Amino acid sequence: MKEDIRPTTAVVPCPVVLLSVAGIPRSNIITLSWVANVCSDPPTVAVGIRPNRFSHALVKNAGDFVLNIPSRDLFDATVFCGTKSGRDHDKFAECNLTEGKASKVASPLIEECPINIECKTSQVVSLGAHDLFIAEVVAVHVDDGVMDESGKFTPSKMELFTYLPLSGQYRLLGERITK
Amino acid sequence: MKEDIRPTTAVVPCPVVLLSVAGIPRSNIITLSWVANVCSDPPTVAVGIRPNRFSHALVKNAGDFVLNIPSRDLFDATVFCGTKSGRDHDKFAECNLTEGKASKVASPLIEECPINIECKTSQVVSLGAHDLFIAEVVAVHVDDGVMDESGKFTPSKMELFTYLPLSGQYRLLGERITK
Repeated sequence: MKEDIRPTTAVVPCPVVLLSVAGIPRSNIITLSWVANVCSDPPTVAVGIRPNRFSHALVKNAGDFVLNIPSRDLFDATVFCGTKSGRDHDKFAECNLTEGKASKVASPLIEECPINIECKTSQVVSLGAHDLFIAEVVAVHVDDGVMDESGKFTPSKMELFTYLPLSGQYRLLGERITK
Repeated sequence: MKEDIRPTTAVVPCPVVLLSVAGIPRSNIITLSWVANVCSDPPTVAVGIRPNRFSHALVKNAGDFVLNIPSRDLFDATVFCGTKSGRDHDKFAECNLTEGKASKVASPLIEECPINIECKTSQVVSLGAHDLFIAEVVAVHVDDGVMDESGKFTPSKMELFTYLPLSGQYRLLGERITK
């Protein structure tokens, strides 16, 4: 039997990313789950951000940002950066995260994240509670420690986790499945 | 040490959904991972589909679709619906899936999926290799079997899985993490 619940954002599971962005007087980090790969060529991502979030104006002004994929050791920082505002907190400093120089964008990357995806905003679509930032991926950096000898990303070498709306849970990834 | 790989769609992990859509002479199913919740109010999803995919014209013509979240028992059907074309296959029949009547849209839902998200397209943004369908969620159905007594979605009651570009792997979700 199916229950008809209220219309809501029910796609599960969702990625969890730390978006880093340049700002004055300091750069900021915001944790987001309303994010996806949306086009292969040019490689493009889409990111939903509420206009009232401190990072919204930063992302709009910067015109670029970095999506950083955290491992489980950054889970507490992930929750902190998703619930505290950059208006009141220096998130890089308070989370002991290192601001790294990106190669193609002005916004900084987060050194401690095994995957960094540099993005340049191409358009912003207003949807209501969130604006959708559509952005081209211009560079990707992957840590040696999460790749095999041939340079291929190997998910078992990091502790990726995911967010589940409807339940509010975060879960680690588990075993691989194949046909 | 970080390696600079080519710019690519590197957000991990990604959801895996079966999109069902009305069509003539028959409805179709396409497996997608370029999908996300993107706005809370109105609840909105965004879905990237290649223009050359058979379902692209169906989704454009129908103006609506259903995102169905599969459990592991539908993994083979998920791979089939992602690699075969509806031009040559009746996917509902060949995968033994049941076409259910949706409540708010003309497209059918997949009865065997524990979560069904009915969506009406509000705009289409051309990005290149993919078009982005932005759609409002108008109804959500959740199976009794994946909810607790209070009607809350309980992820441990189904075997959700996720897709990882860069590696091409599918992985089950694992243990819950909390602060």
